[in-house]
Amino acid sequence: MKIEFDTIGIVHSPYKEKFGVPRQPGLVPQARGSVELLPPYACVEAFAGLEHCSHIWIEFIFDRSPHGRWQPSVRPPRLGGNRRVGVFASRSPFRPNPIGLSVVRLERIVTDKGGVILEIAGLDLVDGTPVLDIKPYIAYVDSVPDAVSGFAAAAPGACFRVQFSAKALQQLAARPDGETLKEMISALLETDPRPAYIKAGREQRVYGIRLYDFDLRWRIADGTAEVLELAPPDHFSAER
Amino acid sequence: MKIEFDTIGIVHSPYKEKFGVPRQPGLVPQARGSVELLPPYACVEAFAGLEHCSHIWIEFIFDRSPHGRWQPSVRPPRLGGNRRVGVFASRSPFRPNPIGLSVVRLERIVTDKGGVILEIAGLDLVDGTPVLDIKPYIAYVDSVPDAVSGFAAAAPGACFRVQFSAKALQQLAARPDGETLKEMISALLETDPRPAYIKAGREQRVYGIRLYDFDLRWRIADGTAEVLELAPPDHFSAER
Repeated sequence: MKIEFDTIGIVHSPYKEKFGVPRQPGLVPQARGSVELLPPYACVEAFAGLEHCSHIWIEFIFDRSPHGRWQPSVRPPRLGGNRRVGVFASRSPFRPNPIGLSVVRLERIVTDKGGVILEIAGLDLVDGTPVLDIKPYIAYVDSVPDAVSGFAAAAPGACFRVQFSAKALQQLAARPDGETLKEMISALLETDPRPAYIKAGREQRVYGIRLYDFDLRWRIADGTAEVLELAPPDHFSAER
Repeated sequence: MKIEFDTIGIVHSPYKEKFGVPRQPGLVPQARGSVELLPPYACVEAFAGLEHCSHIWIEFIFDRSPHGRWQPSVRPPRLGGNRRVGVFASRSPFRPNPIGLSVVRLERIVTDKGGVILEIAGLDLVDGTPVLDIKPYIAYVDSVPDAVSGFAAAAPGACFRVQFSAKALQQLAARPDGETLKEMISALLETDPRPAYIKAGREQRVYGIRLYDFDLRWRIADGTAEVLELAPPDHFSAER
């Protein structure tokens, strides 16, 4: 059976490209974004009551992974990129039906100007991600705290200490969102966002992650992730 | 953006029709069913590692609700069928993209005869439901026990005591699955499976629910749900 679905909304996210997006929601709670509903779904009536929910499910399309190119087995980053597991034993985007599922905190519903925007936090979604559905998180059914979860038994621990160059600290201090942003960048880098295949032998290499309106430039040295600067986003010479 | 998805599997469930299906997964843990994967997804490699997970997400199509007939607001059974909430503040099937989401217990993966069958428990799915995706339940991301969930703050309590007629007890005793089945029927009826609009003024009316290979016939009297008999499924005279 084939079935056709229609995008109901679009994600606005600080994560402007795949590289740097946290691997699960909630890992970087400081990250704030939104879901902008599209007509005819941008209808205030259709969201009535959702304001009483602290968390929502977002079902979305993994649109950065080519549709129709699924793989029976994948190498999850949590296993160091070496061991394979079945695609259905993972949350990999390379699924037969590339549907993603993330629980995020619902901060506010903005309904002025005839539109509907859901302000969310803790997202793990790339900017522009197409949304298929929004559902309330219902704790008494959706929360199974003692579920055994195979290879992803616990949250990934910190891989690195994160430090900031004098320049980066200055740049952060000059921004109104500087303090939250510093926390967010620390949470983002400490679990090592790099895919396993580019980790080896890359000490001193400068990486770039497109965040908000800047290019975050950083490197690894002696077990520390050092933030070098918040560069203008057109400086695309860093590795990503 | 439109996107087309393909069914990867089919649900086999004791619930043979919509009437009687629990409103959420986990409410009737005794209910056992399975997901039968279809080719080319019935591939052992694609499920490797899933056996270490106690729970899975099933994303499925609400195929008993007409596609394309969404409603901005719905009347959830939890609110007595009188109050309206937005469809996106509910788990109603009448959604723009009729995708359902249920967490169920994974009991066993059967891979003989070149197929893949996931044996599950606690399901809230009608027999024949088309499946879009299977994902591992990852407790550290998916479980948010303190999430505030609007009108569905806690599991529905029992509405009725459930009792069994002498005939029904005899019929159950004659079945190898009799004891589990008795527990399952009690769990199913105690929360009152009837839609709100058929509740009023129906004392003594006999209802039928198609379960497994029989038609469960029961009625409400004086705050008690009484199981009358396990009738052959072709006796379709009861109200449903």
